[in-house]
Amino acid sequence: MRQFFLVVDPAAPPVPGDVVGLEPDEAHHLQGVLRGAGDRSWCLVDGYGRRYTARAAGEGRTSRFEILAVAGDPREDAGPRLTLACAVVKGRHFELVVEKAVELGAHRLLPLVTARGVIEPGDGRRARWDALMRAALKQSGRCRLPELAEPLSLPAALAACTEDRLLVGGAPAERDLLGAGRGAGPADATTPAGLALFIGPEGGWTPPEAALLTAAGARPLDLGPFTLRTETAAIAGLVLLRALGGDGGPAGS
Amino acid sequence: MRQFFLVVDPAAPPVPGDVVGLEPDEAHHLQGVLRGAGDRSWCLVDGYGRRYTARAAGEGRTSRFEILAVAGDPREDAGPRLTLACAVVKGRHFELVVEKAVELGAHRLLPLVTARGVIEPGDGRRARWDALMRAALKQSGRCRLPELAEPLSLPAALAACTEDRLLVGGAPAERDLLGAGRGAGPADATTPAGLALFIGPEGGWTPPEAALLTAAGARPLDLGPFTLRTETAAIAGLVLLRALGGDGGPAGS
Repeated sequence: MRQFFLVVDPAAPPVPGDVVGLEPDEAHHLQGVLRGAGDRSWCLVDGYGRRYTARAAGEGRTSRFEILAVAGDPREDAGPRLTLACAVVKGRHFELVVEKAVELGAHRLLPLVTARGVIEPGDGRRARWDALMRAALKQSGRCRLPELAEPLSLPAALAACTEDRLLVGGAPAERDLLGAGRGAGPADATTPAGLALFIGPEGGWTPPEAALLTAAGARPLDLGPFTLRTETAAIAGLVLLRALGGDGGPAGS
Repeated sequence: MRQFFLVVDPAAPPVPGDVVGLEPDEAHHLQGVLRGAGDRSWCLVDGYGRRYTARAAGEGRTSRFEILAVAGDPREDAGPRLTLACAVVKGRHFELVVEKAVELGAHRLLPLVTARGVIEPGDGRRARWDALMRAALKQSGRCRLPELAEPLSLPAALAACTEDRLLVGGAPAERDLLGAGRGAGPADATTPAGLALFIGPEGGWTPPEAALLTAAGARPLDLGPFTLRTETAAIAGLVLLRALGGDGGPAGS
């Protein structure tokens, strides 16, 4: 079922009986693409994990809708919380990371500023990322947007992941740099509440960065024998973590 | 180590002692980016699985190189042969499929013409795909290009995969349409020589297409609970097949 985005105050989300207004673009999209709101019910999502059933509350090309029902989505809470901490790469490459992180079920996205990474001028970047995330939310059938942090340093990102099991995705050379061994320690017998996947820039981690990751307990995640672009590594890592859950899967091989 | 692309006659590839010529763009790239060929050795790949060590055979900005050594790459022959049969989607979306199929180790790419798919005007499309594949080959450290077929129908694609185990990637709705159950049959106890992953268009398979896939023995491959764009499904499916090898992994769940 087609979804539309509803901007809400997370502290006071709408309840059944409330009448809400869609943003102009979204109302235009609903009316234009679908030839009017008519008498049927619509599906609205707020990005905070709620999905609303709603009905047009005005005549003609209205942007006002009455909330009929509110529900969560158990798919949003299945499995451990997934954090993707990914080096910022140029323009459309990081936009791909942002879009695919939504589709692939990430709960948090931390854009990393790394020594060998690239930071583009920030003008409009955040707005583009937000727009891409909303579009991906609607398309993918999710109802919760990943939290998107402002670009941050590796130490700051690690400090935000102290409750997560840490994994670093990379090619064999990256794994060698990390120096972590195969095999799960005793702590790995339990399924963690969260998994945080760290993906470095095209030029790789510097030795001090790798040392920080190792000191924090990060383990390598095997992304195959070939060299992946940063955005491909981010996508591949999310796919594996999502599929393999908390067991670390093929990590360290 | 940086790789450059060498066009060869696959029936008579160069051997040590031969002098070969790089294509003008490639020679320009080698000379321009790297400030001259100098006296060092270079790495050339031919897309047929061979990697050549070579040295400049002329003065200054030459495009001629002498072959010093030839080798294969065991990574290219590890695991089952991976075929991706993916519905053609619009412009940059299918270009992403082409590029990532190389990075993720696919051996064959079959662009599918499906009932609900989109076929773009073909002018220049093939040339763009070939250029993207070469660029991805060089970047990823591979030395064998996937075979890229001309766009073909689902029956033709299935006829090209009779020796492969067939998997169909999709969201829950796609899997329901296929009607295949969980669990591996006796034939699944052996590792197949090849795995072929079928990915449908945004609009999904039609019932006749799904019936063809089911009749051919295709099993569903779980790509998670959310709706993925065609290109995301193709990438996610390749990642899982590559990581899980021939055991079908989370198929059918």
